[in-house]
Amino acid sequence: MSSEVDLAGVRAWVREGGAHARRYFNNVRVERKADRSWVTQADQEVEQLLRERIAARYPHHGVMGEEQGVGAIDREFVWCIDPIDGTGAFVSGLPLWCVSLGLLHRGVPYLGAIYLPILDDCYWAGPSGGAFRNDEPIAVSGATTIDSNDWIGITSYAHRQFQIDFPGKTRGLGSVAADCCYVARGSALGALIGRARLWDLAAGLAILRAAGAAMVGLSGAPVAVAPLLDGSKLPEPIIIGAPQLLERLRGYITRR
Amino acid sequence: MSSEVDLAGVRAWVREGGAHARRYFNNVRVERKADRSWVTQADQEVEQLLRERIAARYPHHGVMGEEQGVGAIDREFVWCIDPIDGTGAFVSGLPLWCVSLGLLHRGVPYLGAIYLPILDDCYWAGPSGGAFRNDEPIAVSGATTIDSNDWIGITSYAHRQFQIDFPGKTRGLGSVAADCCYVARGSALGALIGRARLWDLAAGLAILRAAGAAMVGLSGAPVAVAPLLDGSKLPEPIIIGAPQLLERLRGYITRR
Repeated sequence: MSSEVDLAGVRAWVREGGAHARRYFNNVRVERKADRSWVTQADQEVEQLLRERIAARYPHHGVMGEEQGVGAIDREFVWCIDPIDGTGAFVSGLPLWCVSLGLLHRGVPYLGAIYLPILDDCYWAGPSGGAFRNDEPIAVSGATTIDSNDWIGITSYAHRQFQIDFPGKTRGLGSVAADCCYVARGSALGALIGRARLWDLAAGLAILRAAGAAMVGLSGAPVAVAPLLDGSKLPEPIIIGAPQLLERLRGYITRR
Repeated sequence: MSSEVDLAGVRAWVREGGAHARRYFNNVRVERKADRSWVTQADQEVEQLLRERIAARYPHHGVMGEEQGVGAIDREFVWCIDPIDGTGAFVSGLPLWCVSLGLLHRGVPYLGAIYLPILDDCYWAGPSGGAFRNDEPIAVSGATTIDSNDWIGITSYAHRQFQIDFPGKTRGLGSVAADCCYVARGSALGALIGRARLWDLAAGLAILRAAGAAMVGLSGAPVAVAPLLDGSKLPEPIIIGAPQLLERLRGYITRR
């Protein structure tokens, strides 16, 4: 099965998409979608670019993407495209935005590639094991205690929705995919992810799993990925993180 | 007086410092200072580099810096060095860290230059007016209403110290100097700054003033800069932002 998909090719695609988006950075007009979130010409063109690459190479696969929606999700393999995760950061001139491309096999994360153009960092994981930043293996934090310098990622709405008693620092990076990368590399102990959709998460979940991370719903319920294939939101916020700390992190977060 | 200091030279210095620090990015050993915050060889070397440049060119000026402390602050001109603002971000592989170099004249912000190496962005302002990102003029937001996509910067400890009822987004960038830059360019409506010291703030305050921003203590008291020359912390958190929104922003933030 690992020969089904050319992982080096997928990494090249997200780099190509990121290079394309970067041409619009600090130079783009912003529009609003129906849900009032932002979209730019860069989001639309990068999704189109990735859809064309996928259709040419894997014509029998399904594809879902943030801008063009859901299609053929009954296929064995379904690609999940977030052309720019962190569009708000992108239009603010902030550096943490990324091109995220994940692939599910029968509803299970199979591979993922996330490219952060400003850092020129590509995080990726595939079916043959291991998670990587560029060519370097990464893994979640092995910490068993929490220090005042440790941090977790939080959503940009967390201040209104949650009371967070984490004893270290919080950072609002503005990108779910970036949260996944910084947890996977062990820089963040964990992250609180809001009610994201599969295109935000698919690549990140493949990378997190390969890096040894765990996840759980804020209520303690397990996280089911396959039901998100129809484009729906997570039924509740989730916590991702180092497995040995996951329940402690969950305990620090309560709804306001 | 505007011929006292060569602003183009100051911009070149922060770029030189940033290029030096960048060589350690994703490749640095971390130590702890007495206050348990982090320091790296990069912080120490960049401060030393800037102190040497200043001493050679302006031998009669005073200098204070995050790593080597306060010296000759009774001089008419005092330089304020933060060699890496956002050391925590730097050691986490996050992109928002910067070299910040400000100059005070008789206790008043006179010029500032902040360089963000990963973005290759230099924000600056001098005595002859105007604030700039690279060669482009910047200004604070002119917004008079607050939208759900608008954002403010908050401190990494805000979750434990404050209740924040801002109706938009919050972001924890991990760098006070970066908060100042994103407010000055109008990307953020404002920011909540913790009890920072003058090396964190001096450059940012010069840029903010030139960009049309205002500031106020969380209690509503005015912010006095000159008392910080001895290296002490701000007596209380402050709010920086677009003047027409400053009191509204202050009203959204209460101590927990």
